[in-house]
Amino acid sequence: MNAEEFRRRGHELIDWIAAYLDGVEQRPVLSQTQPGDVRSRLPHAPPDMPEPFDAILRDVDEIIMPGITHWQSPNFFAFFPSNNSYPSILGDLLSSGLGVQGMLWATSPACTELETHVMDWLVDMLALPDAFRSIGAGGGVIEDTASTATLVALLAARERATSGRSNHGGLTGGVTVYASSQAHSSVEKAVRISGIGSDNLRLVDVDASFAMRPDHLVSLIAADRTAGRTPAFVCATVGTTSSMAIDPLPAIGPICRDAGAWLHVDAAMAGTAALCPEFRSIHEGLEYADSYVFNPHKWMLTNFDCSAFFVRDRSALISALSIVPEYLRNPASESGAVIDYRDWQIQLGRRFRALKLWFVIRTYGVSGMQEMVRRHVALAKEFASWVDADENFEMAAPPSLNLVCFRHKAGDEATMAVLERVNASGKLYITHTRLGERTALRMCIGQRSTERRHVEAAWAELKAAAREV
Amino acid sequence: MNAEEFRRRGHELIDWIAAYLDGVEQRPVLSQTQPGDVRSRLPHAPPDMPEPFDAILRDVDEIIMPGITHWQSPNFFAFFPSNNSYPSILGDLLSSGLGVQGMLWATSPACTELETHVMDWLVDMLALPDAFRSIGAGGGVIEDTASTATLVALLAARERATSGRSNHGGLTGGVTVYASSQAHSSVEKAVRISGIGSDNLRLVDVDASFAMRPDHLVSLIAADRTAGRTPAFVCATVGTTSSMAIDPLPAIGPICRDAGAWLHVDAAMAGTAALCPEFRSIHEGLEYADSYVFNPHKWMLTNFDCSAFFVRDRSALISALSIVPEYLRNPASESGAVIDYRDWQIQLGRRFRALKLWFVIRTYGVSGMQEMVRRHVALAKEFASWVDADENFEMAAPPSLNLVCFRHKAGDEATMAVLERVNASGKLYITHTRLGERTALRMCIGQRSTERRHVEAAWAELKAAAREV
Repeated sequence: MNAEEFRRRGHELIDWIAAYLDGVEQRPVLSQTQPGDVRSRLPHAPPDMPEPFDAILRDVDEIIMPGITHWQSPNFFAFFPSNNSYPSILGDLLSSGLGVQGMLWATSPACTELETHVMDWLVDMLALPDAFRSIGAGGGVIEDTASTATLVALLAARERATSGRSNHGGLTGGVTVYASSQAHSSVEKAVRISGIGSDNLRLVDVDASFAMRPDHLVSLIAADRTAGRTPAFVCATVGTTSSMAIDPLPAIGPICRDAGAWLHVDAAMAGTAALCPEFRSIHEGLEYADSYVFNPHKWMLTNFDCSAFFVRDRSALISALSIVPEYLRNPASESGAVIDYRDWQIQLGRRFRALKLWFVIRTYGVSGMQEMVRRHVALAKEFASWVDADENFEMAAPPSLNLVCFRHKAGDEATMAVLERVNASGKLYITHTRLGERTALRMCIGQRSTERRHVEAAWAELKAAAREV
Repeated sequence: MNAEEFRRRGHELIDWIAAYLDGVEQRPVLSQTQPGDVRSRLPHAPPDMPEPFDAILRDVDEIIMPGITHWQSPNFFAFFPSNNSYPSILGDLLSSGLGVQGMLWATSPACTELETHVMDWLVDMLALPDAFRSIGAGGGVIEDTASTATLVALLAARERATSGRSNHGGLTGGVTVYASSQAHSSVEKAVRISGIGSDNLRLVDVDASFAMRPDHLVSLIAADRTAGRTPAFVCATVGTTSSMAIDPLPAIGPICRDAGAWLHVDAAMAGTAALCPEFRSIHEGLEYADSYVFNPHKWMLTNFDCSAFFVRDRSALISALSIVPEYLRNPASESGAVIDYRDWQIQLGRRFRALKLWFVIRTYGVSGMQEMVRRHVALAKEFASWVDADENFEMAAPPSLNLVCFRHKAGDEATMAVLERVNASGKLYITHTRLGERTALRMCIGQRSTERRHVEAAWAELKAAAREV
């Protein structure tokens, strides 16, 4: 493929994407293919000779598309939004086209500096603590996912708690970690990966709203200290995965300070809400946090991957992750005047992800993103009012921001039957969870193009299913 | 931005990228900006109101581009190639446009199945051991980087060596890891992250070709076993970062088998060479490997990130990394009939990366990629012959595949002076390393558009610099 064909095929593909996103709401949201359907239609052996691009695009339409679950459909209400936007697609395209590696400042200064700059913008946009700005000891970085950000935060905490010994002599036990029973599975995954082990993860009880109970955190930490262990890391969640519960940072923060434990705040989906002043109470107490993550690739119109991670003191992070072999040494790094983001992450290589975020923020403006958040939260509120008034459904948790958890009054079996029925219809896609020993459905409203009519149609489908089961 | 504007802007951006790649060889390869230059030209505060796309593209040209180090330039000979291609850009664009999450099979079956299929194709294309095919107990997955792949392999090895205890009770010490002194820094990084600690990493001596000495590996393992430790993981390198040395797998493999240690093979850049039958000897002994990684995003025309990781037995990997909270449970996963790649990686979320690889393989065909590899290796061989015949330069390591390591006969200072001079010229970009206590320059030939004339021009520049220092 030469430049001329790339132009032509590129235009075609842009048009294909525009048409896809325009018409995506007509497609069954959850792919209805069976295991092996896609593979069975692909040729067994790789092609020895070049194939024309037409053949590839035809296979995209005929083989790939039936196997797609349409995350960008306005009828997608499952898991979390992974919302996308036109400027984000273009920013990502530019990143692919430039094909630069931002592992070191020197390997593309703009890649590092735009990232630092846009991370500082996010501190303004979400009114995050000043300590997260790059101007002082802290700073922000784009990680691939919140899972990785939580791991990286844990590694920095482990480094601080063991005065660096964990990196060298290895873990000798005694480091303990705390998160609520509603925290994301990535906390346990990080605890395992880091060698701390899940036996040293304490699950803190939650209250009726599924938020962490500070009194239980206090007693768990006290018991570990008495036993000679080192409480090193607390992960508080702002917007739990199951029900969008908000752990009380104003109470948790001082407990961590007293215990000398690193406080990491996981606001993967909910953080975006802080674009709007009226929702910033979710971050009350964030000034106690040592680190914080939220995902612009969830609810801020930026396509995956783009997880915004901030630390108060980058030195523990860099100390945990920096290794400088000769082949990466360069004058700029040694001057100390630049940031090398490879020391802030697991990977060495990194692509130019700040571009898409920059494109999104500039194209929407902060006001445009606020408008989207307000629309989603208002729709969720309205949906919750319908559930409240319904004869078959009831709320399963207090509604919070853009998530409503509800269940069939007839019990778990009926709830799951509703789930299966509506997902099989293709008209919407929702997922379930467990809350207080009972199964609940999660209606998460966050796709860019979701309007009131989509939520109404989903509700009609849910009501019909509830009557029939 | 609506669909209509996206079409128009998308076409413009495609044309911009085509023109950029067409003209990239005219640009100074290494960005000449100073720290802070880019940031100083960006507005302090994020925009409240939407900005027109024209303004963004103008800033790309005026502010971002001077801060770009041009990895796609045919005059880029630094680090490793991160070579890109038109079909890869288009495949990545399609992934951005679809915006799907492939964390579970159910969240887009095509995302998982195409990935499994293309990974199996790679087994054919590189003539990798059958044990890496998905049909049996093994299989392939796309990780973001070889660093992550090595970490994931280490976690699986740790899991196997401790019968799962490391995940639960935490590490209690005694696990040891082996890699040559020339192994990539990601091995030490993984050892730290996993909590094993760098004191438990043994650096195996290398021979005159900078390849691992099996006899030293034997004695290190024996000493650790005598001391009651558990040798768990050996990372052999096929194509070291500094000099493209090939560790002798036929000798290393049986040592690992005897010791019960997991053998991971890191062929990040070199692996691609195995597309050509005449270079497949680099993989001799690979049948002993428990896991293997190479990066299509280095030398196989696929833009970052795309690291192909294979395991012989996926159960240790999944056992190390799988956690199934209620909100991720689904009928397809529970049927056992599908792969959920989230259990093969650090992250939960994942984008549809197989598309770009599929686009590349089909557009070039295996024969097209072989042609590129042969061209690069031939150019490196020719370059090595010029060095050999030169009065000022000498070889610093045996030339291997597409990498030539050389130095100024007058010593390290002269070598570094040559480096600084040619990189400041903007006409090429190369990097350095240390080999046998001496500084060496690395000429790595692997960009898609690098032709003989670019290598000749680089050599003329290097010769002139060598005369002048």
